[in-house]
Amino acid sequence: EYKKMVRSVKGLSGAGEWYVFKSLLPNLENQNVLDLGCGFGWHCRYAREQKANSVIGVDISEKMLHKAREMTDDPYISYLNMPLEDIHFSAEQFDVIISSLAFHYVKSFEEICKKVFSYLKPGGIFVFSVEHPIFTSRNEQDWYYDEHGNRLHWPIDHYQLEGVRETTFLAENVIKYHRTISTYLNDLIQVGFQIQAVEEPRPSEEMLAEIPEMKDENRRPMFLLISAVKNILK
Amino acid sequence: EYKKMVRSVKGLSGAGEWYVFKSLLPNLENQNVLDLGCGFGWHCRYAREQKANSVIGVDISEKMLHKAREMTDDPYISYLNMPLEDIHFSAEQFDVIISSLAFHYVKSFEEICKKVFSYLKPGGIFVFSVEHPIFTSRNEQDWYYDEHGNRLHWPIDHYQLEGVRETTFLAENVIKYHRTISTYLNDLIQVGFQIQAVEEPRPSEEMLAEIPEMKDENRRPMFLLISAVKNILK
Repeated sequence: EYKKMVRSVKGLSGAGEWYVFKSLLPNLENQNVLDLGCGFGWHCRYAREQKANSVIGVDISEKMLHKAREMTDDPYISYLNMPLEDIHFSAEQFDVIISSLAFHYVKSFEEICKKVFSYLKPGGIFVFSVEHPIFTSRNEQDWYYDEHGNRLHWPIDHYQLEGVRETTFLAENVIKYHRTISTYLNDLIQVGFQIQAVEEPRPSEEMLAEIPEMKDENRRPMFLLISAVKNILK
Repeated sequence: EYKKMVRSVKGLSGAGEWYVFKSLLPNLENQNVLDLGCGFGWHCRYAREQKANSVIGVDISEKMLHKAREMTDDPYISYLNMPLEDIHFSAEQFDVIISSLAFHYVKSFEEICKKVFSYLKPGGIFVFSVEHPIFTSRNEQDWYYDEHGNRLHWPIDHYQLEGVRETTFLAENVIKYHRTISTYLNDLIQVGFQIQAVEEPRPSEEMLAEIPEMKDENRRPMFLLISAVKNILK
């Protein structure tokens, strides 16, 4: 089912938050890039279009990587099939590490932060997106409707209770991990990152014109994007 | 009415988030401190108890400052009656600038940031709390209840629409300004601050034991606290 979503078929241009994610990326020319949760490899191929030196994409889904490999004809992109928790690279191996909508499936963000910090060169950049903590707080992860099916508002509950959320995505049961905004930021800061920007993308004018329901995305933030730099003073 | 609130009568110990705010403060000994929105002056007097060199408290309410002066017997604390937008101090006049629950009454946070950055010495610390953007998104700023008056959840709406919220506080109409989390953080970063910590306090064990309704404060974040440093590299 995920294959049929706009973002899967059209790639990055089908993802509403891509224009913001892209704006957070540094110049990728000659950079060694790691993509955590690369899925079909759209970001990996984008990085090479931007003249990245090499790209490694990691994903837990062999099915998605199979498709990623079919769509990739580039010896400087490698795909690795493993859980993000199991990655192991060399210290200072990468200039840029990115991740799109993967970390809310990972139990410990702190462990990810420690690894990413170690694998980045001094001055290296970490850019990632996750489902917004406002989005993940309840198991339901849905609007609150009136009896006519109108979206009344976006409900929050259990915000401070971090951990497992049993929810559904495209009619499949999935496990996500809810974390607070402060946990995302403080975990980064405590391992030594300096926060460069925090974004809660709203739909672009093009998206609003093309897809009328997108206007509801101004009612609640769906994604949280963070750009951080490995502080060269550390 | 505000005078009768626990936090007004008991001072800092009556404020649920104080134990977190306090943890973000640097050592205040020999520091020159500015408190923006000082109210009854509790934080000003605390700073002097911590051996601050001098403290200036600013508040728009002459009534509150009258009470603050009654409670203060200390020549090294000065109270100034003016809107926060009108402050004007010397560059690098202060070591520490604090503000408790005032900036959501101020139209431009960016202007405050620029001033605070200028008034701080290099390496100076800015610690403030505001009502959380999740709290301020709707005019109602209240729980969503079922027909029996039970709190169903905390509703979010209009999150991306920054600006005026006409709401009530202790049965009085008040104007607040809603801003997104990303605006608070990016405004700070863009004027040159480095984010040190971001907190969304949950009630302490003591508060939970003393006031049973406090358990609902784990369902949504009510306050946002940020500690930032004037980057000495700038």
